[in-house]
Amino acid sequence: VKIGVLGTGGVGQALAGKLAEQGHDVVVGTRDPKATLAKADKDGMGNAPYKDWAAAHPRVALKTYREAAAHGEIVVNATSGHASLEALRLAGEAALGGKVLLDIANPLDFSKGMPPSLSVSNTDSLGEQIQKAFPAAKVVKTLNTCNAVLMVNPGALAGGDHTMFVCGNDRAAKDRTTELLKGFGWKHIIDLGDITNARGTEMLLPIWIRLMGTLQTAMFNFKIVK
Amino acid sequence: VKIGVLGTGGVGQALAGKLAEQGHDVVVGTRDPKATLAKADKDGMGNAPYKDWAAAHPRVALKTYREAAAHGEIVVNATSGHASLEALRLAGEAALGGKVLLDIANPLDFSKGMPPSLSVSNTDSLGEQIQKAFPAAKVVKTLNTCNAVLMVNPGALAGGDHTMFVCGNDRAAKDRTTELLKGFGWKHIIDLGDITNARGTEMLLPIWIRLMGTLQTAMFNFKIVK
Repeated sequence: VKIGVLGTGGVGQALAGKLAEQGHDVVVGTRDPKATLAKADKDGMGNAPYKDWAAAHPRVALKTYREAAAHGEIVVNATSGHASLEALRLAGEAALGGKVLLDIANPLDFSKGMPPSLSVSNTDSLGEQIQKAFPAAKVVKTLNTCNAVLMVNPGALAGGDHTMFVCGNDRAAKDRTTELLKGFGWKHIIDLGDITNARGTEMLLPIWIRLMGTLQTAMFNFKIVK
Repeated sequence: VKIGVLGTGGVGQALAGKLAEQGHDVVVGTRDPKATLAKADKDGMGNAPYKDWAAAHPRVALKTYREAAAHGEIVVNATSGHASLEALRLAGEAALGGKVLLDIANPLDFSKGMPPSLSVSNTDSLGEQIQKAFPAAKVVKTLNTCNAVLMVNPGALAGGDHTMFVCGNDRAAKDRTTELLKGFGWKHIIDLGDITNARGTEMLLPIWIRLMGTLQTAMFNFKIVK
């Protein structure tokens, strides 16, 4: 499957790497490919520069947001939440329309110090804002509730005995997403309903961040026990 | 131990009933005991009128918020979140000062329809508002992330293999709370730190409410898998 992954950070790398490994035809998108490849330093999250990752993944091309989105039958928003709407605008409605758009970003606001708050929450969500801005895209919110390693390899924790959520307005888009998630190893997937449920999953981030501090690891996840 | 439980709804009944069963000396508090005992109808959540519960629990007295709080070495805020600050004001700072104050309420706002949003969240929390309003109380936020049955009987789900959170500014108050929780059967208790972490646990409610709809039961809980 042709997939465009928007975002070159740890999350974008994890998704693009796993999808390419599974035989998908992956193009990663960024604002300015030359600038991204010129960066020599680690990013703010401690990830190695993208060019190192790219050298290890020669089959994954780096193009503009627009080119990567146009390439994909499925498009993954793996940009930082604060930059997502702008990145998607650069991708353009024409390149997103009719596509399954996996939104795995979180609207974290680091501007008021640590731990971050959410820039949108409670009565709205980033997932809804994206769906509203790109009504022809089939937005599915998922994978935003655990770290990048677990997103694509849930079996690395407790044999995969923990939970992933999906929500979105389009049934077929959610089915396709669920298929991808199962391919990653997700066993417990809960469909919460329409995209307004992104409020619920994005609002998991405040406790996720606090738990990362308390547990001193990002290798944990929520399991819904029922 | 002398315990005052503020609130006569399903949560107050569950807590007061369990604590009395464990041999504690429990007084339940309400705004107007005569009015509470005069109610003959089920409440908005479908709970039987308090007088039926009271008849089945003759050792638990019903008094005013102030009397119940004054009675307790430990005070439990089991009122509705939207009414908590007012109930605690009626209890009075003198009756709360120096006490362990378990805050198990959630700031649910039903005024904009279902599902409810939170009346405070993200950059503040009900737990913090209570601590700020009653600085001499030792507020511990806990038990707000599951239904009333599981609060006092976690073993009723998956043998208790799920998680409870505590947070608060006073170490000894959290230790005492943890002791009570263990007495209820809680095995996995995570101390998130100070009372600002109530933002994290209260923000679990939006997904909790959505999961209750999706799963068609309130008998579920979060487990932190690590």
